[in-house]
Amino acid sequence: MNEFEDLAARLRAFAAARDWEQFHTPKNLAMALAGEAGELVAELQWLTEEQIREQVGGGELRQRVSDEVADVLLYLVRFADVCGIDPLRAALDKIDRNEERYPAALAKGSATKYDQL
Amino acid sequence: MNEFEDLAARLRAFAAARDWEQFHTPKNLAMALAGEAGELVAELQWLTEEQIREQVGGGELRQRVSDEVADVLLYLVRFADVCGIDPLRAALDKIDRNEERYPAALAKGSATKYDQL
Amino acid sequence: MNEFEDLAARLRAFAAARDWEQFHTPKNLAMALAGEAGELVAELQWLTEEQIREQVGGGELRQRVSDEVADVLLYLVRFADVCGIDPLRAALDKIDRNEERYPAALAKGSATKYDQL
Amino acid sequence: MNEFEDLAARLRAFAAARDWEQFHTPKNLAMALAGEAGELVAELQWLTEEQIREQVGGGELRQRVSDEVADVLLYLVRFADVCGIDPLRAALDKIDRNEERYPAALAKGSATKYDQL
Repeated sequence: MNEFEDLAARLRAFAAARDWEQFHTPKNLAMALAGEAGELVAELQWLTEEQIREQVGGGELRQRVSDEVADVLLYLVRFADVCGIDPLRAALDKIDRNEERYPAALAKGSATKYDQL
Repeated sequence: MNEFEDLAARLRAFAAARDWEQFHTPKNLAMALAGEAGELVAELQWLTEEQIREQVGGGELRQRVSDEVADVLLYLVRFADVCGIDPLRAALDKIDRNEERYPAALAKGSATKYDQL
Repeated sequence: MNEFEDLAARLRAFAAARDWEQFHTPKNLAMALAGEAGELVAELQWLTEEQIREQVGGGELRQRVSDEVADVLLYLVRFADVCGIDPLRAALDKIDRNEERYPAALAKGSATKYDQL
Repeated sequence: MNEFEDLAARLRAFAAARDWEQFHTPKNLAMALAGEAGELVAELQWLTEEQIREQVGGGELRQRVSDEVADVLLYLVRFADVCGIDPLRAALDKIDRNEERYPAALAKGSATKYDQL
């Protein structure tokens, strides 16, 4: 079992033990994921990039950002599992596709979207 | 190397080859993550839970949802890497903490937040 | 002055009095808006539509949802003002365009996106 | 009727004419709002604040950002209406409360949250 399957199994057991499967529908989990992405963004919104780089190495900001990263990941894994989707496979396929869409020679140094290259 | 470190390494190489590290600041990556979480939610917003369960097993909806899961995961891994955070460690620590905050006996069948249990 | 201009003026004064213009950049305000949209979604994610309809008429849920509606609106108005965009004008133009894209005869009862009608 | 009530009435008529009330539940509308907030953030994520200030005054970026501001506002007004919440009243109450929570003398030049002042 890889780490993703391992997390999915722990989350399945966690939800089952608490009779929470009733709440873990695709829509609810997608909403929870969006909520946590919002919390992650909120931790950084008033800081400058310099302040973030200085503070994210340790201390309070690191803990809070770490927690939000965890929350996003946990809901993402749970969402994918409930939908029968393999998130690792999906991510690897997407990197492959991005490598084709954004050939290094064309895309270098530019954030232009692939359909405008 | 576990799958998370593997994804992080591929994304590091992907960004370096395209001279994209300049765009991959913590704030920009957090914004990209929130944007993709929004795209995931948008795929489901007009569907009922029943329609989602029927359609997410295969076909167009599965592909689009899979792509959004991938996009969220890729930005999450890249964000964590740029901040020097281990997303797997963070997630495992968070499940442990959630198990303490939501003891099965107290939390069973209820979505009440831990500070109200 | 219409209500939107009125809110924008109050928010301008509020930020100036606290020397907060430095934080109110377009990107920061867009992040704050996404964060508040996340908080709104989080208030509803574990509730069923029936529970929401029963509870949103008054009491705690109403107050919390009201607050999140307010937060989203305030950041939206502030963001638009900082970018020199008229949100009311933009919204009215968008409804007009949506009326053309989704002619009632074609769009009735279907959530299909306009480019698939 | 103020501008908010006017927008709400137009959106009510728009939805009724297309038999779309079935889709406009509180959860669906909150999801749509989060999706549009994500689209707004996505328009800005790779740009620097300087690039945004240069480009948002006119041209393509202005149009796209304007459209996203419109989409967020329209879903917010529709969501509030479906929940029986007055968004203008909520926003005015919130500014009042923020003025108490963040007295200018204490809050000047600092983004510290009110419970830490």
